[in-house]
Amino acid sequence: MKNRIITISREFGSGGRTIGKEVAAKLGIACYDQELIEKIAEKSGFSSEYIKEQGEYAPTASWIGMAFAGRDSTGHSYQDELWNIQRDIIQELAQKESCVIVGRCADYILRDTADCLTVFIHASMEKRAERIVKVYGESDLSPEKRLRNKDRRRKAYYQFYTDTEWGVAQNYQICLDSGILGIEKCVETIVSLY
Amino acid sequence: MKNRIITISREFGSGGRTIGKEVAAKLGIACYDQELIEKIAEKSGFSSEYIKEQGEYAPTASWIGMAFAGRDSTGHSYQDELWNIQRDIIQELAQKESCVIVGRCADYILRDTADCLTVFIHASMEKRAERIVKVYGESDLSPEKRLRNKDRRRKAYYQFYTDTEWGVAQNYQICLDSGILGIEKCVETIVSLY
Repeated sequence: MKNRIITISREFGSGGRTIGKEVAAKLGIACYDQELIEKIAEKSGFSSEYIKEQGEYAPTASWIGMAFAGRDSTGHSYQDELWNIQRDIIQELAQKESCVIVGRCADYILRDTADCLTVFIHASMEKRAERIVKVYGESDLSPEKRLRNKDRRRKAYYQFYTDTEWGVAQNYQICLDSGILGIEKCVETIVSLY
Repeated sequence: MKNRIITISREFGSGGRTIGKEVAAKLGIACYDQELIEKIAEKSGFSSEYIKEQGEYAPTASWIGMAFAGRDSTGHSYQDELWNIQRDIIQELAQKESCVIVGRCADYILRDTADCLTVFIHASMEKRAERIVKVYGESDLSPEKRLRNKDRRRKAYYQFYTDTEWGVAQNYQICLDSGILGIEKCVETIVSLY
């Protein structure tokens, strides 16, 4: 049987990672999130921390900034290198087994090569602010500022590497508001549509 | 018990209307689609045909065109009048009973006053083209041209009256790709999340 992959794109603080883990547990398949970062770290030599940030977020608020920053004479940046390694690892995983992959543009990377259920998880600013304080604790910046910054950079990263808009309903098979529906209902819905 | 409303926004040709009807039948509640148009016709004196088109589509491809077309000396247009009547009828329905309402910006109209499950149904151009030929038959224009025209005008109408973007995942609690998931799975998902 061909592998079937669930890709979960998510807004920061929407609980998409938790949903991915629970879906995978219910289906008895692997969930690649932190494990994916470790794999990329191993192959690339970059640190996990660097990958966590740079493999999903544009380094500045503006993608223009990213497009021209830190490129060598061939026009290639560290970010591009990381993108290529991420892409190869995600392709390998999808070849190897049915699994859940959280973030890292997996929906786009696998669009022509794997049988995917593509999911986007979002929630209101209020619900996400509540959640990130609970999960990650307080910081100097207000939760709303942290969220806006993360949203902007994730969106820019996605758009730059995929030339597709992040968070547009038409680009996913299922989009769910975890803030209103709740984590558990989101998990059930994805499992039943798998 | 407070009424619970399901609003279904949909791309033309995605089967959203069929999904709405089947969801309502399964839940044993009313589905307002054609019935809503009749009610608006009765109250407004406009014909059903006029309402079908003008109560959901911008008259031209550009909302700028619409914004300034056919306005009287108070800056009020027939379209605005129709909007007001639609809005009042949708509010009355939501007060009266739990139901499914298809289209007509019901998600936006009820956002502060009713307990809603807001749904957006979409599908690829190919799947929708296939569907509209099957459901509505051939016409002089290619199915793709008909779809693009409808999409553009529906989007413009929604944006003009709601100042919110149509088809952006964050504006709905559930978005589903009926072309990939199939009508039946969409119905089941909505029913189970109700």
